Amino acid sequence: MGLPMCKNLLKVGYPVTVWNRTAAKTSEIASLGAIVASSPKEVAQKSDVVITMVGDWSDVEDVVLGHSGIIKGARHGLIVVDMSSISPLAARRIAQHLEKVGVEMLDAPVSGGEIGAKEGTLSIMVGGPKDVFEDCVPVFKALGKTITYMGKTGSGQAAKLCNQIICALHIQAVCEGFILGEKLGLDLEQLLRVLTGGLANSRILSDLGPRIIKRDMRPGAKMRYQIKDLRNVLSTAAELNLPLPCTSLVCELFQTVSVMGLEESGTSAAILVMEKLAGQKTGQ
Amino acid sequence: MGLPMCKNLLKVGYPVTVWNRTAAKTSEIASLGAIVASSPKEVAQKSDVVITMVGDWSDVEDVVLGHSGIIKGARHGLIVVDMSSISPLAARRIAQHLEKVGVEMLDAPVSGGEIGAKEGTLSIMVGGPKDVFEDCVPVFKALGKTITYMGKTGSGQAAKLCNQIICALHIQAVCEGFILGEKLGLDLEQLLRVLTGGLANSRILSDLGPRIIKRDMRPGAKMRYQIKDLRNVLSTAAELNLPLPCTSLVCELFQTVSVMGLEESGTSAAILVMEKLAGQKTGQ
Repeated sequence: MGLPMCKNLLKVGYPVTVWNRTAAKTSEIASLGAIVASSPKEVAQKSDVVITMVGDWSDVEDVVLGHSGIIKGARHGLIVVDMSSISPLAARRIAQHLEKVGVEMLDAPVSGGEIGAKEGTLSIMVGGPKDVFEDCVPVFKALGKTITYMGKTGSGQAAKLCNQIICALHIQAVCEGFILGEKLGLDLEQLLRVLTGGLANSRILSDLGPRIIKRDMRPGAKMRYQIKDLRNVLSTAAELNLPLPCTSLVCELFQTVSVMGLEESGTSAAILVMEKLAGQKTGQ
Repeated sequence: MGLPMCKNLLKVGYPVTVWNRTAAKTSEIASLGAIVASSPKEVAQKSDVVITMVGDWSDVEDVVLGHSGIIKGARHGLIVVDMSSISPLAARRIAQHLEKVGVEMLDAPVSGGEIGAKEGTLSIMVGGPKDVFEDCVPVFKALGKTITYMGKTGSGQAAKLCNQIICALHIQAVCEGFILGEKLGLDLEQLLRVLTGGLANSRILSDLGPRIIKRDMRPGAKMRYQIKDLRNVLSTAAELNLPLPCTSLVCELFQTVSVMGLEESGTSAAILVMEKLAGQKTGQ
């Protein structure tokens, strides 16, 4: 995600300094005019706004609070925008660390995947101080199309988790509906047409449905990230003593995809779990 | 559903003979010109096509195969169209009984609820012999907007079950997403706007989401029928040795609504189960 996002920032004229754990990954963006730093600390020293786009909360902690992290190069008034998807409670903890040294933080996870990053059409859900959000709107506008302020620190991540619950359960919904349809001998293309025309319609059904029917496992969104997000949902819910029964079950089912060695596949791989449960290959 | 459907048949000029278990329910349609019969048998004697729109498979069996049922008044070439939602395997069994006496049957369950029935905009999914379907298309067009031939006997019911799986899981998806959002202090109206703009969007989210937020329990679709349909899904899946883990869990959760005495409520009552699990009233 980082590379296309940096390109979009350069395109509208922002000076961009980058760092990546894997140095080779910065060569393309360097050739387009970005400065390559040797550490997150150095990025912070050279920037007014530092955007992090990494894996999970522990990666964000490393990059932000680690021994050559952003916090080591930070000065009063620096803004850190974490666009990774992590738990809202982790986002709050990291923001509190930064606050102590006068650094403001926004949590700004995205929806829309690699295609959205490339096309600059990401949906960005933002939490943190309102005035800091407003300062950063021009940056967000270079990266995405729908920019929504969700509230206090952690609220961007909270909205993203809600988004991921709904997407995951929609994926499972389509898989359970289609596997029953297959077993009952329906023509799935026709079933898809009927269902998209009615109350069962969803973006997941219309976008992912055709891939599920064809067993097209190319990502789109990788199963690995969907599982990571569901784990963050469940750890967050656990801290709140909130049972989320179907989300828990879907997380368990999706983890079977990892066991099958397919976590780099797209989320359409959820249908393979249903096939496995059904004890046979059911594809048409 | 029967009354508005009969009205639409009368409106386009079909002669209509009706029967209802509760005789009083036929007075309005009689005043509009329908003949009231004393039994399903008599309806069959006076009709070329007999439509059944009742509760579950046992009701269909009573009306079709019972001792004053349609089969007792049937003659060769009569067409029975069952528009109730029952299991595809039950539909096949009933069709086999009728076939023995030269009666053709279509299974033609609908999606779109009471509003769709009133406005003649139902989506009708039809299974059975193709030529019989084609003969009945003019009748279906008086009742619905999207008429889809799904295949052999039972295929209409099969499509409806797939529809109900997806709708039920979408309802639960919205409830789990929103209850987490509430617990994390999000403004749910704003969350709804963000989610409907992205990959999480669904007809259920956009139509039912606002009701779930407001705890508006008026039906729309009654929870009682959603539970009935899920039970038919699960009994059908059981006959096929097909596990449907999330559908099973959602059926269990929705049945809690009945335990709470709210089965006549709309499907937005699913949020009350999540509240109960969360151990407190969380509504805004």
